[in-house]
Amino acid sequence: MDSRLKSFVSPEILSREGYTPGFQPKGKGNLIKLNTNENPFPPSPLVANAVLEQTQRLQFYPNPSSHKLRNLIAETHELQEEQVIVGNGSDDILNLCVRAFSDSTRSVGMLNPSYSLYPTLTSLQGSKLEQVEFSDDQFDLPVEKIISSGVNLFFLTNPHAPSGLSFPQHKILEILNRLDAILVVDEAYADFSTKSSISFLEYVDNLIITRTFSKSYSLAGARVGYAFSTPRIIEVLDSVREVYNVDRMSQAAAFAALSDKEYFEDCKSKIISERSKAHEFLTRLGWRTVESQANFILTEPVTKGGKAGKIVAKSLFDYLEKHDIFVRYFPNHRLTESKIRISIGTEKQMTTLFQNINNWQNENS
Amino acid sequence: MDSRLKSFVSPEILSREGYTPGFQPKGKGNLIKLNTNENPFPPSPLVANAVLEQTQRLQFYPNPSSHKLRNLIAETHELQEEQVIVGNGSDDILNLCVRAFSDSTRSVGMLNPSYSLYPTLTSLQGSKLEQVEFSDDQFDLPVEKIISSGVNLFFLTNPHAPSGLSFPQHKILEILNRLDAILVVDEAYADFSTKSSISFLEYVDNLIITRTFSKSYSLAGARVGYAFSTPRIIEVLDSVREVYNVDRMSQAAAFAALSDKEYFEDCKSKIISERSKAHEFLTRLGWRTVESQANFILTEPVTKGGKAGKIVAKSLFDYLEKHDIFVRYFPNHRLTESKIRISIGTEKQMTTLFQNINNWQNENS
Repeated sequence: MDSRLKSFVSPEILSREGYTPGFQPKGKGNLIKLNTNENPFPPSPLVANAVLEQTQRLQFYPNPSSHKLRNLIAETHELQEEQVIVGNGSDDILNLCVRAFSDSTRSVGMLNPSYSLYPTLTSLQGSKLEQVEFSDDQFDLPVEKIISSGVNLFFLTNPHAPSGLSFPQHKILEILNRLDAILVVDEAYADFSTKSSISFLEYVDNLIITRTFSKSYSLAGARVGYAFSTPRIIEVLDSVREVYNVDRMSQAAAFAALSDKEYFEDCKSKIISERSKAHEFLTRLGWRTVESQANFILTEPVTKGGKAGKIVAKSLFDYLEKHDIFVRYFPNHRLTESKIRISIGTEKQMTTLFQNINNWQNENS
Repeated sequence: MDSRLKSFVSPEILSREGYTPGFQPKGKGNLIKLNTNENPFPPSPLVANAVLEQTQRLQFYPNPSSHKLRNLIAETHELQEEQVIVGNGSDDILNLCVRAFSDSTRSVGMLNPSYSLYPTLTSLQGSKLEQVEFSDDQFDLPVEKIISSGVNLFFLTNPHAPSGLSFPQHKILEILNRLDAILVVDEAYADFSTKSSISFLEYVDNLIITRTFSKSYSLAGARVGYAFSTPRIIEVLDSVREVYNVDRMSQAAAFAALSDKEYFEDCKSKIISERSKAHEFLTRLGWRTVESQANFILTEPVTKGGKAGKIVAKSLFDYLEKHDIFVRYFPNHRLTESKIRISIGTEKQMTTLFQNINNWQNENS
């Protein structure tokens, strides 16, 4: 970059690294995409009509607060509309949290590993980041380290990614009670779990719960996220939000998807059932596999000869990719470097995956 | 706000005022909405099908860089794809400019009056704002004041809002050559004008031109904006952008609208023709009316008895509202307080407006 342009750019921006999304393979017909935790099923059939209706009104600005959608979300979760905010994906809301509750003197905390967007948003804001490590490879929630982290805002992904583990709710409540900071519980995957921290909203004043339509509602392509909190915190987040952050079609798509409870439950139970089968398959191979409460599963591949580790995990990742199956591999952390993360697909996709894993084992003793 | 929450919020956030969008009246059938510079025509008929196709793929994340759309935008304006960025409305891109090129030591400049989102974005970033005033009520571009404003980033709306005036291009080039800062020429309304600063991109290294699909392409409800600059500046803006900032449906809608050149030209010429008729009508009444190059017109109402001013402008605004015609009134600046801004509507809407203006004059001597 030439020096004149450099002088115009804020130094925080120049020095930072961007977020790298999961690889999006070009649309060949037969590939199996199990790398970005998308839902393998299309959205509710109600979505198309709802969107089509909006295409006739696109010359008009959308409702700036996504009013109808907020209302339905509140109703669905038995909250007040004032406790809900809607964003351009939950990424938008995570960004609002960072902008409202952190700056050069108010730092941000997160578990390491967890969602790699948190550091990106934090560096963009010029805030300091505290990465709290797990004590062991069981992903036990390091409660005391979080409470003493000294941050103003802490991101806790639950169910955790990339492990899929659901942290005990009483530990989250303990953090909420003792942490002198805002706790964001990022529940992007909570619809695939039996637990949520929503009920804590009655008792505490420092909780924000973020959710998304991307995973459980099959709307990753529509970019709609939401969050629950106290009316006061929602007011703060709203004051930082772009006025027209969610377009007409996305508001309508999310509204339709949320209305179709039957379709939602149906897709969800199919995914949970495939997750169980995957867990059974992988543990039967003797692979250490986290008991996942999300729509993905983290497992440690082992060769027939009993070898595990970084090279083995990378070997399986490459083998699958060569056979048009895309999973995710995170080589940069000791808790993930010997594992791969598999998004749960359709029954057919998972069967093909299992066959390929068997083949890999047979070819790599 | 209770004091514990207050302690969590950054002081810049607590003290700032939000952006107030134009009033969106509830959807009664017969109202005439000429207050937010929307296009009175629906988008190209190609949009619906393009969007519908995407509703079958919404479970997958969108292309993170809006690649196809960038490409078509570049082609349309005879630029390289590396010179184009796409945002969630041009508001998103204006925000990226503020985040990349301003901070507590790098200030932002703007003309006063112009787009009231600039101060909102600037305060959110904690950057200082320099408001450059016009020297007279002719909205003459204050070139020297801009050049000596000492900012790192300057927003110049051209055609200017709320006047509709198109500043002389040689003056913009002079600013570009002498201003030691990034100049954003916000060309939200440029499609309704005969001029643009695009050709300057060949000669200067500090120019960003922002555009939108909201106005001339009838896609305010889809939230798609774009910008042109040097590849290096686009790289910087991309590094600050949310990865999936534009959803699948909006990318497809904008692509389809941009492909339908005939429809675009047809809507545009209808609006320009109604703008001419409005100008003629208003000047025939003896009202001082800016020669607009945008899809709105700023005029100073005068009673039959020859009175003008704040009270008169507000009286017309209220009268029209009572008759379900919504225009915009900006009481907070000396250059706008005695005027009203009218978005250009359909022939039928404008005829009704003219009749109501005549009635108001007859009832207010």
